[in-house]
Amino acid sequence: MAAARGTEREALELLARLLPAPPCGQTWFGDDAAVVSAPGGGQMLLASDTLVGGVDADFSLTTLADFGWKAMAVNLSDIAAMGGRPAYAVLSVVGLAPSGIGELYEGVLEAASAYGCPVVGGDLSAGEALVVSVAVTGHVEGRAVLRSGARPGDSIWVTGALGAAAAGLRCLRAARGGAVEPLLAKAHARPVPALAEGAAAREAGATAMIDVSDGLVSDLGALARSSGVGFELEAVPVAPSATLEEALGGGDDYALVFTLPAGVEPANFPAAGLPPPFRLGVCVPDPGHRRLAGAELPSSGFTHALATAQGTSAKLAPRGGPSELR
Amino acid sequence: MAAARGTEREALELLARLLPAPPCGQTWFGDDAAVVSAPGGGQMLLASDTLVGGVDADFSLTTLADFGWKAMAVNLSDIAAMGGRPAYAVLSVVGLAPSGIGELYEGVLEAASAYGCPVVGGDLSAGEALVVSVAVTGHVEGRAVLRSGARPGDSIWVTGALGAAAAGLRCLRAARGGAVEPLLAKAHARPVPALAEGAAAREAGATAMIDVSDGLVSDLGALARSSGVGFELEAVPVAPSATLEEALGGGDDYALVFTLPAGVEPANFPAAGLPPPFRLGVCVPDPGHRRLAGAELPSSGFTHALATAQGTSAKLAPRGGPSELR
Repeated sequence: MAAARGTEREALELLARLLPAPPCGQTWFGDDAAVVSAPGGGQMLLASDTLVGGVDADFSLTTLADFGWKAMAVNLSDIAAMGGRPAYAVLSVVGLAPSGIGELYEGVLEAASAYGCPVVGGDLSAGEALVVSVAVTGHVEGRAVLRSGARPGDSIWVTGALGAAAAGLRCLRAARGGAVEPLLAKAHARPVPALAEGAAAREAGATAMIDVSDGLVSDLGALARSSGVGFELEAVPVAPSATLEEALGGGDDYALVFTLPAGVEPANFPAAGLPPPFRLGVCVPDPGHRRLAGAELPSSGFTHALATAQGTSAKLAPRGGPSELR
Repeated sequence: MAAARGTEREALELLARLLPAPPCGQTWFGDDAAVVSAPGGGQMLLASDTLVGGVDADFSLTTLADFGWKAMAVNLSDIAAMGGRPAYAVLSVVGLAPSGIGELYEGVLEAASAYGCPVVGGDLSAGEALVVSVAVTGHVEGRAVLRSGARPGDSIWVTGALGAAAAGLRCLRAARGGAVEPLLAKAHARPVPALAEGAAAREAGATAMIDVSDGLVSDLGALARSSGVGFELEAVPVAPSATLEEALGGGDDYALVFTLPAGVEPANFPAAGLPPPFRLGVCVPDPGHRRLAGAELPSSGFTHALATAQGTSAKLAPRGGPSELR
């Protein structure tokens, strides 16, 4: 799930006091997906994430089919961030006229088919706002990769260049219905869950992993907080047409950030047909240390600092609503 | 999930054409919960159901804690209706101020604890309307009981008297904040998923089962439609203070209706510490045959017919929104 911000983080801290602790070997709230016991033994993953029309999508720039795709993709990305593979999805839809169901499901079923995660149930409810809530189950070979396993000295990697989704949204807004470079438009409209990359990172020995849903600084910050470490970034891969700000603070990229023990390289990626990950930097012992090329990054997340400074909150945090409970 | 009505049924029929067919041995859309493969082998259940503030709850009559309880209970009832036991839940909340999270979760966690179904994850999103979407996993010993297995000659049973939830809502409305008989108020505010009863019905050899979420006639109608049978009811158990109309058309009771092969009795209920089920009648070969004590019941569901006749739709169908995709 996306990383928590502001008052929502306060609500989550309240919840953390209310909720019982999981049994040994399970992970409940606080990660991209929950890790629970499978009926036949072993581990199972369970995640849910919700998109809200008007908050998570501007329907003057995106279609209902894209919205359906994205509702699936953000959940599949949660499974990817644990190093797992998806199994089944259920989908609850509120506030959509029957005439829109076909188009929404077109995108839902494209994603379901592309990533091998059939939609096996769901419901339709009346309501004033469009809300699409998806829950997915997943499996994992061996052990799921949590957010909390990074140690000082671990290297930090990202599976792809960042900022394309934010740049795509910026260009779509500027074009006002005109043409936008297709790859950029697609980066915003059809995010790709990095399932193969997540499995490869787990196989390479990843100690911690998270997906970049809210922006690199925010999400890497969540991983570092869970792990009790800080980080020193050397460089960040910026997607073509994106700015450094978009690469650091733009959400919705769904690349994966992961850590590896010192001396371990993600050498298995090319053999799996995947581009080599980009090395971002290293974990450090001081949890307050959060730097890029020697310059300090705001501890509360890059997005909000930029939004305040530039008044571009919407551009830099297109998914303004959701926050993490897991 | 609740039984489908009107234009939502048309949307579901559209979906049925879009959706791929499940592999042999699995059940996707069209039942109370989906039946899928468990990671370690065997069957797993997966259900999701959503409550919408203002549609599924009137907050002048009910509390946020009750709403949280009910969001869990309707999902647990879906697992009960398959003869299963629940395992884990995830919860997505849209449009609730952080100050309300504690109260909502109070009811959620009471239900989670009462029925052994921990909430292991979820998310919070901004939005204009309150929407609580729950997904639950479940296990089942042997085979899940579907809606579609009833055969002509099978007897029809219900696990308890009907109409208490609708009667409770009627009394709460009439009292305008004044005192209401506690059991009736609780029947509306805190529905009880019949998990032990569902397991006992499966063990007794139930051929089909469904929960009474939308009203007996509507839900038994859905079971009969899935099974390709009609039904002849001899009598219906009406809850104290409820009317026959409330017993037939009132929703939210969450008793279970099940069928048994001719000659089989649910003799195991008392040994399990459960009240004996009530025999409603028998399945007949003609799918168009839907009668109570010789009188015809409307094929499109009792609720809407009554609503039209009496202008009391809200009373008789307190859950106006949700409809079935599974």
